[in-house]
Amino acid sequence: MEQSETDNNILDKFNSLFYPKSIAIVGASKNKIGGTKFWLALQYTRFEETGGKTFLINPKISELFGQKVYPSLLDGDIPKPIDLVIIAVPAKMVPKIVLQCDKIAKFGVIYTSGFGEADNKSLENELKNAINSVSTSFIGPNGLGIINPYSRLAIYPGWGVYKGDISYISQSGGNLARLYMNLGPLGIGFHNCVSIGNSYDISTNDLLEYFYHDNLTKIIALYLESIPNGRKFMQLAKKITPIKPIVLWKGGQTKRGISATHSHTGGLAGRYDVWKAMCKQSGILLADHFELFLDLILVASTRPITPKNLNIAILVAGGGIGVEFTDKFESAGFTIVDLQTKTIDKLSEIFPPINTNLKNPLDLGELSYDPRLFSKAMEIVLKDEGVGSVVFVREAERFSILSKMLGIDDAQKMTIDSLSEIIGKSDKPVICNSSMNIDNEEGYHQRHEFQIKMIEAGIPVVNYIGNIPKILIQFYYYGKFLKNRK
Amino acid sequence: MEQSETDNNILDKFNSLFYPKSIAIVGASKNKIGGTKFWLALQYTRFEETGGKTFLINPKISELFGQKVYPSLLDGDIPKPIDLVIIAVPAKMVPKIVLQCDKIAKFGVIYTSGFGEADNKSLENELKNAINSVSTSFIGPNGLGIINPYSRLAIYPGWGVYKGDISYISQSGGNLARLYMNLGPLGIGFHNCVSIGNSYDISTNDLLEYFYHDNLTKIIALYLESIPNGRKFMQLAKKITPIKPIVLWKGGQTKRGISATHSHTGGLAGRYDVWKAMCKQSGILLADHFELFLDLILVASTRPITPKNLNIAILVAGGGIGVEFTDKFESAGFTIVDLQTKTIDKLSEIFPPINTNLKNPLDLGELSYDPRLFSKAMEIVLKDEGVGSVVFVREAERFSILSKMLGIDDAQKMTIDSLSEIIGKSDKPVICNSSMNIDNEEGYHQRHEFQIKMIEAGIPVVNYIGNIPKILIQFYYYGKFLKNRK
Repeated sequence: MEQSETDNNILDKFNSLFYPKSIAIVGASKNKIGGTKFWLALQYTRFEETGGKTFLINPKISELFGQKVYPSLLDGDIPKPIDLVIIAVPAKMVPKIVLQCDKIAKFGVIYTSGFGEADNKSLENELKNAINSVSTSFIGPNGLGIINPYSRLAIYPGWGVYKGDISYISQSGGNLARLYMNLGPLGIGFHNCVSIGNSYDISTNDLLEYFYHDNLTKIIALYLESIPNGRKFMQLAKKITPIKPIVLWKGGQTKRGISATHSHTGGLAGRYDVWKAMCKQSGILLADHFELFLDLILVASTRPITPKNLNIAILVAGGGIGVEFTDKFESAGFTIVDLQTKTIDKLSEIFPPINTNLKNPLDLGELSYDPRLFSKAMEIVLKDEGVGSVVFVREAERFSILSKMLGIDDAQKMTIDSLSEIIGKSDKPVICNSSMNIDNEEGYHQRHEFQIKMIEAGIPVVNYIGNIPKILIQFYYYGKFLKNRK
Repeated sequence: MEQSETDNNILDKFNSLFYPKSIAIVGASKNKIGGTKFWLALQYTRFEETGGKTFLINPKISELFGQKVYPSLLDGDIPKPIDLVIIAVPAKMVPKIVLQCDKIAKFGVIYTSGFGEADNKSLENELKNAINSVSTSFIGPNGLGIINPYSRLAIYPGWGVYKGDISYISQSGGNLARLYMNLGPLGIGFHNCVSIGNSYDISTNDLLEYFYHDNLTKIIALYLESIPNGRKFMQLAKKITPIKPIVLWKGGQTKRGISATHSHTGGLAGRYDVWKAMCKQSGILLADHFELFLDLILVASTRPITPKNLNIAILVAGGGIGVEFTDKFESAGFTIVDLQTKTIDKLSEIFPPINTNLKNPLDLGELSYDPRLFSKAMEIVLKDEGVGSVVFVREAERFSILSKMLGIDDAQKMTIDSLSEIIGKSDKPVICNSSMNIDNEEGYHQRHEFQIKMIEAGIPVVNYIGNIPKILIQFYYYGKFLKNRK
């Protein structure tokens, strides 16, 4: 791969990778788990309806699923140059296919594994030499390649098409899928997702540079196990984070975890405390497990506001859950701030003293499911100068029964509309927890619908209480980084 | 309340509380959020079909929902003695109603709040004096009372009837509901659930003694913020845990958390490290948040096996998730144990070296979704003498597509049946994580169904990876406690 491109032509440079017009799959066979998977995936997203062409390559067969199969990439019937070649042949054959790509293919994805991560050093060297000797640039090996909902690029049949403004680099195909499939249905979509594998050629840093310039990308998500050029990575991150948030999950945090990353993607992972320090210094939001990674991106996408301090106000209905939030926030380093007298006075004009507690954590009682009362409470608490962030609970499953009890048409809609207006005017972080009330299909339906509509209204809903203080702390550090830069 | 009953008559003593034949609700009104809620709940569970009678009491109205309303508990048309009186009148009227109960009511539930937890010391004293002067025994104040699916006792309309062998005492009505409603639909049901509130009369210790003797109770769950007699509690726990596991979630772990418990249930919470030490010494399984509490009970109910050591084997399909499990387990103090040579040899007879990694964490590749292969892998790993516990991932959403790809009728059923047989023969803890593949209704349906069927087959499925090492560590301590007793 050529390394000399300037900022100006980087978008052009990667265009054929992310928006290919022709894709060849080398190693397509009747085995649906191999290279054929990619073709089935492109069928699923109807890639060819965008005007793109696919070519199946296998010297042993001439037809698959009614589609012509070509004996070789070099076949004269395949128009050249090919934008993207997917290589899914046994490991020892990969270098040969890479060499075939020279001059006739712009990009390649090497799906096959069995190189450095399998301690196969000689095959690793052979592959690296092949890559260095050709004009083509490669993703992988040991990577699934690219999902791009805009160009209908896909890697697995049935994964859906979720357009949005997150671009994602993952050193794990599984973690690529998990994030894509868990955020997509919530209305939080993606531009480009890259399963980068061992990255012998195109690196995380190359792609970061691209995402920095790409106007469709507003947030960058990274699942990384190792980084070949840490200094460059940090320079890039410092350039990017003031404009686009970067959320990183580092796989390999412990000794054995780091050794497992070596078996996985073959890199040298480095000590986790060094990564932590690097993230703080370059404004990267850091997650230590999947759900936190997902929630950080969800919040970055929905309401990316940094708190001025770690003073939290907690609004719930119920004493026990108020205690739970207090335990979690205080042990994470927050102050459950004493509300100002005027705040408590205003609240006590609205809420009766029975079955409520107007001391932070605020237990506003079951009556607070009346959206007319709850939105007023939110407004009052957000105006309290001592409060840095607000966290609150709405159990989605309660809206229907409480609509009846309170005689309101649609308590959920009224809640979201009124909260959206009030929270939209505030410059403080606000996070909702929807606290699973019942674990059944109807309950899921109600929670899921509520979460989607809240996100649409600009209010993040985070399911796991324990993650909320961690999210706010990451945004607090991010805010300090942004402030110190000025 | 009389305190002199012997072990032999404790079951008789509490029978009218848990299996009442007559219930009077004092403070029933048109406001459906007040005392009427209890009547609606009993309608929902069809309490009267068990032969029980309900009586609504309110001097201001004579009829409600077509049901006769009596002016007073003392009304001659209400047969005496009444088994259970639910008191839902304003706080200052409560002592008067308590005095009325004398001689005519066996038990009372005081739903009303506004006593010690609201710093209303004089009303608290007045209520305590009233309680001490009458023959009736009381739950509360500030408590919701009792759910008993067997006697159709209920506290909130729509909460379902989930019979099982857990008995649960909670100092939070909200946390009572959450556990009941989240475990019930998974097929893990309850005998008695008690929202005990401030417990001025009937105490946690009284109920523990009852649950110890109650044959229907096999597991005891506790959400506690304070305990009036810690020494007695520990004596009781030491007596119970060798026979029935106790799972405790302590609300109020931090300074402000403890102060919040005071506003909630008015007790003196005590330092969390003292509670932690007490749990270790008395074999109590301890949770620090709701989801862990739920998961501990789920495991105690499904496969209550204590690990001999903290050596874990991790079976997954995918490199990234193997790294995640390794990070979580190692940072929790586990050893990701090197498997024996014979184990690896046997595994390598089954799994090809491509896209797999036969080093712990075991990445068995996508091919391992073939249940015939996966159950063999499980059998081989369980037989490895160095392995203390096994944790594995099956993504429920993948079974249908993989059934097609692998040409198997029902990969999920075959997986559960074969694993159930193999795991059933082992004396090691085994926990499955179903790792959310897609966050939509179909995905939820598949995960939920899988979880229910696995639990039925005796294999616990825990949703949140981070909780699994915590669960196994609690069971490890429990095992050490049981061993040291012998």
